[in-house]
Amino acid sequence: MSIDTADLPEPDPQDRPAPGSNPGWLSEDELGFVRRRLPILYVEAVPVRLDGTGRVTEVGLLLRSTPDGVMARALVAGRVRYGESIREALFRHLENDLGPMAFPQIPASPVPAQIAEFFPVPGILPYLDERQHAVSLVYVVPVTGSCSPRQDALEVTWMSPEEALSEGTLSEMLGGRGKLLRLALASVGC
Amino acid sequence: MSIDTADLPEPDPQDRPAPGSNPGWLSEDELGFVRRRLPILYVEAVPVRLDGTGRVTEVGLLLRSTPDGVMARALVAGRVRYGESIREALFRHLENDLGPMAFPQIPASPVPAQIAEFFPVPGILPYLDERQHAVSLVYVVPVTGSCSPRQDALEVTWMSPEEALSEGTLSEMLGGRGKLLRLALASVGC
Amino acid sequence: MSIDTADLPEPDPQDRPAPGSNPGWLSEDELGFVRRRLPILYVEAVPVRLDGTGRVTEVGLLLRSTPDGVMARALVAGRVRYGESIREALFRHLENDLGPMAFPQIPASPVPAQIAEFFPVPGILPYLDERQHAVSLVYVVPVTGSCSPRQDALEVTWMSPEEALSEGTLSEMLGGRGKLLRLALASVGC
Amino acid sequence: MSIDTADLPEPDPQDRPAPGSNPGWLSEDELGFVRRRLPILYVEAVPVRLDGTGRVTEVGLLLRSTPDGVMARALVAGRVRYGESIREALFRHLENDLGPMAFPQIPASPVPAQIAEFFPVPGILPYLDERQHAVSLVYVVPVTGSCSPRQDALEVTWMSPEEALSEGTLSEMLGGRGKLLRLALASVGC
Repeated sequence: MSIDTADLPEPDPQDRPAPGSNPGWLSEDELGFVRRRLPILYVEAVPVRLDGTGRVTEVGLLLRSTPDGVMARALVAGRVRYGESIREALFRHLENDLGPMAFPQIPASPVPAQIAEFFPVPGILPYLDERQHAVSLVYVVPVTGSCSPRQDALEVTWMSPEEALSEGTLSEMLGGRGKLLRLALASVGC
Repeated sequence: MSIDTADLPEPDPQDRPAPGSNPGWLSEDELGFVRRRLPILYVEAVPVRLDGTGRVTEVGLLLRSTPDGVMARALVAGRVRYGESIREALFRHLENDLGPMAFPQIPASPVPAQIAEFFPVPGILPYLDERQHAVSLVYVVPVTGSCSPRQDALEVTWMSPEEALSEGTLSEMLGGRGKLLRLALASVGC
Repeated sequence: MSIDTADLPEPDPQDRPAPGSNPGWLSEDELGFVRRRLPILYVEAVPVRLDGTGRVTEVGLLLRSTPDGVMARALVAGRVRYGESIREALFRHLENDLGPMAFPQIPASPVPAQIAEFFPVPGILPYLDERQHAVSLVYVVPVTGSCSPRQDALEVTWMSPEEALSEGTLSEMLGGRGKLLRLALASVGC
Repeated sequence: MSIDTADLPEPDPQDRPAPGSNPGWLSEDELGFVRRRLPILYVEAVPVRLDGTGRVTEVGLLLRSTPDGVMARALVAGRVRYGESIREALFRHLENDLGPMAFPQIPASPVPAQIAEFFPVPGILPYLDERQHAVSLVYVVPVTGSCSPRQDALEVTWMSPEEALSEGTLSEMLGGRGKLLRLALASVGC
């Protein structure tokens, strides 16, 4: 499977505020430096819609265009900033990717549904990220509002759990995230 | 520790509809029979309020009067009926105990935060129920609406996680449920 | 999908000791009675072999013959007796199905990897058991010794996680347990 | 609460091999740089002993001397290196702190029992680390062999779960880890 440099998106400007305001600011050079020295912490979210008894009725997947112009399904994902809590990072990236009216319900438990380890070289582990060694905490997040994708996501597609788990959909996810989606949905009984 | 026959409440009439309408109906005699023959399946819920990032801000405990007239803190709890799913049982008991406007958010994951095993004789396990061998699936359930206790619960008291975990509060819960509350709240980082 | 009466096996004699020695004893008539009145509590186990860092290298599936003479893959499974803890029931059924030299490592956490609800009539839920309404607590259990199937299991087949998750294998499991195996293995990253 | 610079120990030489052999090598200056720019990923482990049915019988706590000469209870803990999997990091730190004959059983599930976020300034979150923003994945790890502490740990003390959870013991853990130990043990029903 090829490497997806778009699926864990580049830190957006909000991830890297001006040096004066945030000690966690990283220049391009610094970002390149740390990416070859340390595992980088990410959060990822699978947006879902629930019925009144908590059962998953729909799964939301982003449609993104990679730098190479390939269309791919993606999860909500982004880096945890210096000084930012995991909950704040999760909320920020959900708002960035789904818009301000999505009303995500961040889970009460801080323990993720799955953990995914991305390595820059192909190996035993299923997840691959050419740019870096990244560790992703993956959450399933119910969303109650309406989604209007922002940034580089073209749309949010809602589909049944069965459709999300079909071979066709899973194969449209890059970097091994088809498997990651399957594992995350298993945690909610799908 | 004394035994709490009120804390896992007696099956209410809704748990035992008339024989004609439900094959799961149990007469008093039959209930007594099965309680000494099989582990009985219960669900329990710790109602919580969350802030916008999913952090628990308040914990809701019921105040009940036991048959002996002792006031005790309790969780939402009740039996799973024949033919009823765990989600349905959880929703039904939350509605029974918190009223129809509580708007509980049943968790997407069917896996409980904790499992509690109650035995009719004191022993190695911390939970005791004189009437029966019961196995409880315990969930932490965010509640967004307003609660008006029904049935035999006198009130719902909302308190901070710290207050809920204080020795004073935990000791007001019977049958070992102080420990159970502590374990369930640990699953949401409290 | 047809119903597998072998997969959740009939309570064996050890599940029903003589009346004098155990209040939980159930005659055939009594078992038939409770099966149509209450959800019956089961435990199930997916035996696995781990490498030194805890990664699953092999999955063990039982090969059973159903009463109709159909060969089917199955998990270790059985009823929780009156007065028996979940851990004891898990250990007893692992020993019954894998033999006394399997040396299973019962997980430290009492919370199962998955919960499966079986209903006697086909419906929204994926799991089906014609005989009863059953609720199964499903655990993934590392096994370090050698397995010699006892009772009605013909053999234990060890296979790679990939092979266990292949369509071919999953379709050999009855009553919806192909899905259950997939969900349970997801909890260990497979 | 004071800050424990010993409890999340300084990266040992094995964490920082010579530049030639590992791209993840960090000089003192570089380590200081990244610690103020990125959340640093750690693993922590609570060593436990189990009985034959998986119940925790003993909890192992390290006794360390802080740079100030204060004795404190600590968990097994250390940084995840660039290019190293979480399982490998967990195994390496368990071996470093407990010796080569401890025979830890790394859990089959990669999902931790708890997640702890340490910030360099006191705030709403309970965990504090003056040197850095660190995110710890916390696991409960059964240990079957004999432990001989290495490095800066003076001894491993085995105690009952009740003793480990006593106010006396919890208060001997620095940086908020008394709470972390309580949360981690709750995941195994203690």
